[in-house]
Amino acid sequence: MANFQKLTPRSEDYSKWYNELVVKADLAEQSAVRGCMVIKPYGYAIWEKIQAELDRRFKETGHVNAYFPLLIPKSFLSREAEHVEGFAKECAVVTHHRLKNDPNGKGVVVDPDARLEEELIIRPTSETIIWSTYKNWISSYRDLPILCNQWANVMRWEMRTRLFLRTAEFLWQEGHTAHATKEEAIAEAEKMLGVYAEFAEKVMAIPVIKGVKSPNERFAGALDTYCIEAMMQDGKALQAGTSHFLGQNFAKSFDVQFLSKENKYEYVWATSWGVSTRLMGALIMTHSDDNGLVLPPHLAPIQVVIVPIFKKQDDLDKLMAVLAPLADKLKAKGIRVKVDTSDKQTPGFKFADYELKGVPVRIAMGGRDLENGTIEVARRDTLSKETIAFEGVEEHIAALLEEIQQNIYKKALDFRLQNTREVNSYEEFKEEIQKGGFLLCHWDGTPETEEKIKEETKATIRCIPQRDNILFNGENTIFEEGRCMVTGKPSKQRVVFAIAY
Amino acid sequence: MANFQKLTPRSEDYSKWYNELVVKADLAEQSAVRGCMVIKPYGYAIWEKIQAELDRRFKETGHVNAYFPLLIPKSFLSREAEHVEGFAKECAVVTHHRLKNDPNGKGVVVDPDARLEEELIIRPTSETIIWSTYKNWISSYRDLPILCNQWANVMRWEMRTRLFLRTAEFLWQEGHTAHATKEEAIAEAEKMLGVYAEFAEKVMAIPVIKGVKSPNERFAGALDTYCIEAMMQDGKALQAGTSHFLGQNFAKSFDVQFLSKENKYEYVWATSWGVSTRLMGALIMTHSDDNGLVLPPHLAPIQVVIVPIFKKQDDLDKLMAVLAPLADKLKAKGIRVKVDTSDKQTPGFKFADYELKGVPVRIAMGGRDLENGTIEVARRDTLSKETIAFEGVEEHIAALLEEIQQNIYKKALDFRLQNTREVNSYEEFKEEIQKGGFLLCHWDGTPETEEKIKEETKATIRCIPQRDNILFNGENTIFEEGRCMVTGKPSKQRVVFAIAY
Repeated sequence: MANFQKLTPRSEDYSKWYNELVVKADLAEQSAVRGCMVIKPYGYAIWEKIQAELDRRFKETGHVNAYFPLLIPKSFLSREAEHVEGFAKECAVVTHHRLKNDPNGKGVVVDPDARLEEELIIRPTSETIIWSTYKNWISSYRDLPILCNQWANVMRWEMRTRLFLRTAEFLWQEGHTAHATKEEAIAEAEKMLGVYAEFAEKVMAIPVIKGVKSPNERFAGALDTYCIEAMMQDGKALQAGTSHFLGQNFAKSFDVQFLSKENKYEYVWATSWGVSTRLMGALIMTHSDDNGLVLPPHLAPIQVVIVPIFKKQDDLDKLMAVLAPLADKLKAKGIRVKVDTSDKQTPGFKFADYELKGVPVRIAMGGRDLENGTIEVARRDTLSKETIAFEGVEEHIAALLEEIQQNIYKKALDFRLQNTREVNSYEEFKEEIQKGGFLLCHWDGTPETEEKIKEETKATIRCIPQRDNILFNGENTIFEEGRCMVTGKPSKQRVVFAIAY
Repeated sequence: MANFQKLTPRSEDYSKWYNELVVKADLAEQSAVRGCMVIKPYGYAIWEKIQAELDRRFKETGHVNAYFPLLIPKSFLSREAEHVEGFAKECAVVTHHRLKNDPNGKGVVVDPDARLEEELIIRPTSETIIWSTYKNWISSYRDLPILCNQWANVMRWEMRTRLFLRTAEFLWQEGHTAHATKEEAIAEAEKMLGVYAEFAEKVMAIPVIKGVKSPNERFAGALDTYCIEAMMQDGKALQAGTSHFLGQNFAKSFDVQFLSKENKYEYVWATSWGVSTRLMGALIMTHSDDNGLVLPPHLAPIQVVIVPIFKKQDDLDKLMAVLAPLADKLKAKGIRVKVDTSDKQTPGFKFADYELKGVPVRIAMGGRDLENGTIEVARRDTLSKETIAFEGVEEHIAALLEEIQQNIYKKALDFRLQNTREVNSYEEFKEEIQKGGFLLCHWDGTPETEEKIKEETKATIRCIPQRDNILFNGENTIFEEGRCMVTGKPSKQRVVFAIAY
């Protein structure tokens, strides 16, 4: 049951607002296990819609699902030098396979006789176990490409966790593909970035910038990491998805070669790409307001809620005589409808609850509406409502859902544009970065300069934007040459700096 | 690519036949981690269909999905005495959360400074972590019932593993429900058994016996375990799904009480129910033959394969002029179709491969068929083929798929009926059990007698059948009273004995 103590306003404490909202809207909560969350049914219903939309896109682009083991032999991690460096410090390690009764009679203890010969790691990501498997699947160019995806849980022992944004265990999908040529692998990594960007913008209504990571921010073991970056309402950046061109690194680590058409043995080229339940955090922080969640209609578990306003059963019966057929008409259009005829809560309570839960459209009808042939339609995104003719309201609502989807995307895009600015000197940068948002700056391309900026300002390069992005503010000079704001060395284009989640 | 070394015949070595088939049909394989399997894309595609069919049924019966942590604090397991007894001996235990570089320079080692205060167990099942969560969700009768399901991976450190049938890690769903009354919880456990049985028979085409487990075979922590039992082609039994009435055991262990309508605090009543990737094993062993998989059309990733027989591109073009529209017509009927126009394999190779993969219907067409207006239709279940008029073939195929679905169910049911017999003396039992199958016998209801039979014959009571099962052989005397075949004590009905997987 919803808790109607008001949310802390975003302006007062954005972080607190987020934490409260996730819990009060019944999306997720902390569990008894440090850093691991429980995803509650309402939150999971949104995640299921995200999964369904992505899974369809993966299959349409020729991918198949498979499943690889949860546990990875410790020695596998070490095979790729950068990879182990990136993940060893935050691994959950399985060392034993049995408990036994405590000799002192208090519950159970680890059985020292059941120590594993080699420790196993709960997968933080699956490149190593998958490439050890691909070795058996690949011998000739005829076996390529392999285009696999897996939906799975993974674990990274983060020290500071936040629901959805950074949890020790999270759910995700990880695509792992194997190719005969470098060009094909790069094309795959870019294609999947495009799939993510289209999904983020069209389904989640989150505008994203497509780009490439600087070397400092690359995935451990990748030659190039492509990413989509989104701006949250506090002006911070959130990485919403990544796609990696892995070169031949993992093929070499696990000795995966294929006989080419030219009858030569060559190492296989690889990509991997993933998005996670972190997207739930991006969704919440992009659209929601001080009254609660705002959900894009494409992902809302309930798109329309119908609330009859009644005192007596007789009133309800009369209202339902027209509202039940309306619900059926909406369902026939593929709209997800809930009719709330409960008499346990007041209409005011219900309205606040559906607002908190982000239901895009709320329809209410009372006795007077019935007499007048009217109905009240409220939209969650603008919090506006209007009383309109009941006749044909189903058409109006279907169109309204699309309008809301577009509107929240536009609102988020406008916000990003307003908070993205070009900065040309490091002095200005240090001041501007305090205000949040994306800063478009020239950078000399060196890790040293990036590191210095990060140390001094906490800002990182979110990405080196690609050319096919939606234009930034006003006249777009991002792809003009210039000079690094720190060192004055030449720069080919501006990059996006921000403080990131 | 398929390997056409023939499968070991079932009659020669059933177990070997199974192991070979799972690998050769590209369903699953062993991984580098002992006891953990890789589910390959073709196997996973079948599992996805199983998931979709079950998930729809769960939602239709009012359940919602959620997600609970992978890891369980060791102390939680100990809270329910029988539960810990049942699972402690096969737990993967996480003891550390970090690796570090080996001081001797060889890869990485477990960092002794990163020892967890309390060890964590990879969930073998989730009753404990879920009931520790439900404690926060439940305070009043208004919060009940809770009807949650989770799709997840679990781990039980089995010593002897077999692909799908018994693996250290497996995929499953586990429903966990909370109720205000005992009656409601029992009704839920029985309802979900019904859902499993209907799914097994209608979708998987596997006839099952619904019943209750004897105390010896109950789930650790349950008051009653309901189950569906299937017979494999070697006459052994396979438990295909279980639904548990847990009483108030877990509510008491985790102190979950609610304020009733009568304003009294009471412990909550619980059920849990699950099916796993073990169903894949049941599917394979129920229907398949010495040529490979036989899949029920409702679960087949490819229901119909169309193979044009051609030598030159020109021949193929002519054939495709009629076959492409046929494929479209079949797809329009919701049928999953693959058209195989590859010129890299001979038709004979393709036929054998689709047979191995269990594609229910194969359509072939060559130049002569095209001239004659005919087409060849082969069915996988009977291995028969016929040449029929091309005109209207899409109707024929749609009907044929349903016929195959019915036929393989009937075949499996006939097999079970033929291999189920009543046995009245223990002498006869000891002889008959060697021949396999289900033996219907009187039993005095004591664990001692069951234990004795198990020790002497390896047979266990698979279930005490419920009355609403499909009738057994001939006249059905199973529900008549009698005397225990071992002790001669009175017995209310016969029970099902078998050697089990």
